[in-house]
Amino acid sequence: MSPIPVRASLAGMCRWMAWFGQPAQLSILLFDSPHGIVDQSLHARMGAEPTNGDGFGLGWYDAHDLPGVYHSVAPAWSDPNLRELAAHVESPLFLAHVRAAIGSPVQATNCHPFRHGRWLFVHNGYVERFAELRRDLMLLVRPDLFAAVQGSTDTEVLFHVALTLGLEDDPLGAMEQTIGTIEDLAERKRIPEPVQGSFGISDGETLWAVRYASSGRARSLFVSADVDTIRRLHPDNARFSALGADDRLVVSEPFSDLPGVWEPVPESTALTVRRGGVCEHSAFAPRRRPTIWDQRARDSSDWLRMAGDKLLGPD
Amino acid sequence: MSPIPVRASLAGMCRWMAWFGQPAQLSILLFDSPHGIVDQSLHARMGAEPTNGDGFGLGWYDAHDLPGVYHSVAPAWSDPNLRELAAHVESPLFLAHVRAAIGSPVQATNCHPFRHGRWLFVHNGYVERFAELRRDLMLLVRPDLFAAVQGSTDTEVLFHVALTLGLEDDPLGAMEQTIGTIEDLAERKRIPEPVQGSFGISDGETLWAVRYASSGRARSLFVSADVDTIRRLHPDNARFSALGADDRLVVSEPFSDLPGVWEPVPESTALTVRRGGVCEHSAFAPRRRPTIWDQRARDSSDWLRMAGDKLLGPD
Amino acid sequence: MSPIPVRASLAGMCRWMAWFGQPAQLSILLFDSPHGIVDQSLHARMGAEPTNGDGFGLGWYDAHDLPGVYHSVAPAWSDPNLRELAAHVESPLFLAHVRAAIGSPVQATNCHPFRHGRWLFVHNGYVERFAELRRDLMLLVRPDLFAAVQGSTDTEVLFHVALTLGLEDDPLGAMEQTIGTIEDLAERKRIPEPVQGSFGISDGETLWAVRYASSGRARSLFVSADVDTIRRLHPDNARFSALGADDRLVVSEPFSDLPGVWEPVPESTALTVRRGGVCEHSAFAPRRRPTIWDQRARDSSDWLRMAGDKLLGPD
Amino acid sequence: MSPIPVRASLAGMCRWMAWFGQPAQLSILLFDSPHGIVDQSLHARMGAEPTNGDGFGLGWYDAHDLPGVYHSVAPAWSDPNLRELAAHVESPLFLAHVRAAIGSPVQATNCHPFRHGRWLFVHNGYVERFAELRRDLMLLVRPDLFAAVQGSTDTEVLFHVALTLGLEDDPLGAMEQTIGTIEDLAERKRIPEPVQGSFGISDGETLWAVRYASSGRARSLFVSADVDTIRRLHPDNARFSALGADDRLVVSEPFSDLPGVWEPVPESTALTVRRGGVCEHSAFAPRRRPTIWDQRARDSSDWLRMAGDKLLGPD
Repeated sequence: MSPIPVRASLAGMCRWMAWFGQPAQLSILLFDSPHGIVDQSLHARMGAEPTNGDGFGLGWYDAHDLPGVYHSVAPAWSDPNLRELAAHVESPLFLAHVRAAIGSPVQATNCHPFRHGRWLFVHNGYVERFAELRRDLMLLVRPDLFAAVQGSTDTEVLFHVALTLGLEDDPLGAMEQTIGTIEDLAERKRIPEPVQGSFGISDGETLWAVRYASSGRARSLFVSADVDTIRRLHPDNARFSALGADDRLVVSEPFSDLPGVWEPVPESTALTVRRGGVCEHSAFAPRRRPTIWDQRARDSSDWLRMAGDKLLGPD
Repeated sequence: MSPIPVRASLAGMCRWMAWFGQPAQLSILLFDSPHGIVDQSLHARMGAEPTNGDGFGLGWYDAHDLPGVYHSVAPAWSDPNLRELAAHVESPLFLAHVRAAIGSPVQATNCHPFRHGRWLFVHNGYVERFAELRRDLMLLVRPDLFAAVQGSTDTEVLFHVALTLGLEDDPLGAMEQTIGTIEDLAERKRIPEPVQGSFGISDGETLWAVRYASSGRARSLFVSADVDTIRRLHPDNARFSALGADDRLVVSEPFSDLPGVWEPVPESTALTVRRGGVCEHSAFAPRRRPTIWDQRARDSSDWLRMAGDKLLGPD
Repeated sequence: MSPIPVRASLAGMCRWMAWFGQPAQLSILLFDSPHGIVDQSLHARMGAEPTNGDGFGLGWYDAHDLPGVYHSVAPAWSDPNLRELAAHVESPLFLAHVRAAIGSPVQATNCHPFRHGRWLFVHNGYVERFAELRRDLMLLVRPDLFAAVQGSTDTEVLFHVALTLGLEDDPLGAMEQTIGTIEDLAERKRIPEPVQGSFGISDGETLWAVRYASSGRARSLFVSADVDTIRRLHPDNARFSALGADDRLVVSEPFSDLPGVWEPVPESTALTVRRGGVCEHSAFAPRRRPTIWDQRARDSSDWLRMAGDKLLGPD
Repeated sequence: MSPIPVRASLAGMCRWMAWFGQPAQLSILLFDSPHGIVDQSLHARMGAEPTNGDGFGLGWYDAHDLPGVYHSVAPAWSDPNLRELAAHVESPLFLAHVRAAIGSPVQATNCHPFRHGRWLFVHNGYVERFAELRRDLMLLVRPDLFAAVQGSTDTEVLFHVALTLGLEDDPLGAMEQTIGTIEDLAERKRIPEPVQGSFGISDGETLWAVRYASSGRARSLFVSADVDTIRRLHPDNARFSALGADDRLVVSEPFSDLPGVWEPVPESTALTVRRGGVCEHSAFAPRRRPTIWDQRARDSSDWLRMAGDKLLGPD
């Protein structure tokens, strides 16, 4: 039997969006925006593949300690529960993701955002020839995090490597080390152009976004302009009247085509969006020297050698 | 947020059955037998937990090279597709499994039977405190098999360790080594009673079944008596008139309560059922000396040391 | 092919609960109560059938105009989204329902609560031999409501007949007429004991509950005692300290076995629970004289006669 | 709350195919043909909407009395069970359908093919403003067929009206009366262009297909040319070497772009494909005089009048 086929185009064309600002009804951004994220599940424009129908995910922060997460294997466009949820939940900071699977199963555990404690993580893109890298990457995940990997996507493993490398203390630094490590492994296995994507990360206080590709053009990424700019460009557009100075949207594909509203994030760049609408750009450069590996290597080889000794033993 | 709760009883009470004999309409065994496997999905009797509603699976051999597999997250009792399939598929050798999840997600990739090439694998039981053992066990899976593990169950990992240890050449020997290895790891982590279960294995030519628990009583397992015995005991039962001398059923719970029809498989015992209804019993004893580990340990520690060296390098 | 089989016991053993009082975290009542509704999905005690695994539904009122509804075909015990939702939604008035299907498909449109505008409706029980009554009952639904019936359950049709008969103006009166009408139709078709069940109804301001069976014992129904009584009976139980004077629970099966906490609702009785914890009992007696039928009959027969005349016409 | 939105284009762009000829492995036609039906679920070309991701269905005839049916709410492109089924089932006559929902829920009971006894029915298209016609059409369904309507699509109701009008005796005649009746009702309600679509019908012995629109261009429909023609046009194409003189394909959209292989079915035309590859064209013209209505009108009005009389009675 032939395995489930990979899409003609390997370009995993997921789409995601993040809102950070005043508490907003989710439905306004998910459903009521022209060419919003749910519309993009059916009609994405900026990629070879217009359909993102392999599941959906939503993560939102509210008054509770942990963010809520909703994952569905139904296409976003046809899930009645998503409409209900979006009509009843408000949040000042949330991420949404529509998935176009590249070979891996359509199941809730493969839907973004992935969550660890207060952290949420979304990704549009891929790790090239992930099947060949999966074992090595899983081996590098902190042993006590290993069992938390429940699905089979590249993104979830990448997230847990980043957690291992200190995402909770320094998200952008950990991402630089994570991607550097993947590129290092890939080089040893002669896998070209291993990492491609845009990433969204949050702990509920800050929103980070990364645009990066090992080579070639990275997945698109946009941030909304500041409100003054938007209003000056489109003084008569009623949609922008409710927008406040603190509101920022980060999206992998613009919601509409209004000029000046969406600023492209440059390649190899990270965004840090803080409360109050502050949005900082910084260079993003993978780093290949995670000192933690030494310890992991010693731990694992010790155990394996010991296990081997013992198991082999005097037969 | 609290994680998905484990069932009050940790006794993962899946149920499975295997048919080997004349080509049989699946529906006769799945639906039309008193207290058959689908009825057991709702009303299992031989365990603390009567409900096996966390998915269903079917694997059948036919004229094609590879066995067919049907996995559903719906309870077996309510899945219309299963009824259709069962009414239209005939097979001389098939396995069916109803799942009661213990913590792991209800998704198709967690449904039995698991398949590798022509091999099918089902399990009723569990690996105790699997989350603590998962990483070590995954590490021992042959690297080229690692990416084939798509779900998050103990059974799928156990199956791939057994494949690593030679299941395709010597299924019962590989199972003895696999379970021995798990018991060895568990001992080092002070996990008592690590393995519990009955297992069903086939390559389409032979059917193997194992009943074993590291300590205490193992999950129940039964094999149908030979036809002559059955007919002598129940000469007037019309159901048994179609049964041939070559037909054998292996079940984790009897389909009906007719005395003498079902022979309990003793503890720590393996069955080998061959074409023609031949059914051999053999002792099943875990073994703790898989010589393959040495090579795996060397491979992995070499790589990790090298990676560590390289990654640490001269900063 | 045999149709999907009806459960051995025809007793459709759904379970439901309603909360009306201070705004409450849903998870506390759904998951954290001993023998709460989610536990009842797996282990119901008060009926022939312990499993209610054929879908789940939730309806809650909040600051928005319309109540939110969440429907899932997964068993309540295994749906991760339900746990998330319950952990993040608070409501002063909500209904939850776990379903045990009797023949009709497991699909979201068959999950309770059913909704019409601000109205929610749940039911534990059945209309006997519904297939024989479905056409007549659908015919009596107000034509402009006809297309709103999306699923195939008896409950949804019964709800729309009740809406036709004035549920929005006089819920208990409309229910008396609805059940009276069903009994009338059933009598003409010689269907004995046609209606069985407990019903929960709300418009967000008031909660009504009905316990009734055409003959024999009706489905169980309980209401929580007033807080003073509960505290006097169980002065040391910490669970009851947060309970306020305004809080009432109506359940088809008690959450725990503490004596005095749950008062059985008598047969043929309706409850009216108002803000402030006020709970009134009234007799419930089906009535067989819905004057609206005359108009419906005239409308429909006129149309049909006209259609027939026209279609037959001069051939 | 806003209802589930209708697609921008109301043109319900389902796709279907039918095979009639030598017993064929389903997977060859579903998966292995260039631009086959599963590919069309993601990349349909001949309509405004390229995605048909709202469920899938398959109906096949084999040695059993009744055809098998498989319905899935997953998009066809991502359903592993469909791949398994297609790899293991052979059939001389089968229909497949990928659905693009127009407002109605994505649930198995809304997936084509619909089945009645040995009859299968698929449809690409719609009944315009169906919500306004649903009650009248359901009223005309033969009372003993009423309860068999399980979903909420226009197609299922249309199929049951056609069964009422004698589909089993004269399929094309019944379809002419059914569509004529819908057009008649629509005219009375001032609904323009009520019926649009292509239809596929079979009883396992014959395959019928209809292309018709009340006005404007009907949905596309094609039939494969006879084998001699195909081979003469494409002598070097290996794919056609296995094709026999008895094999015919009917598709709503061609599988590939080879000239001469696919013959468009003219507007307002019915095909009758018989064993041996015989394919007859006939004109298709709706007829508005179904004499059965008179009886139905009398039955229903009698009952309603009686019910009204009785229910009103002496109050």
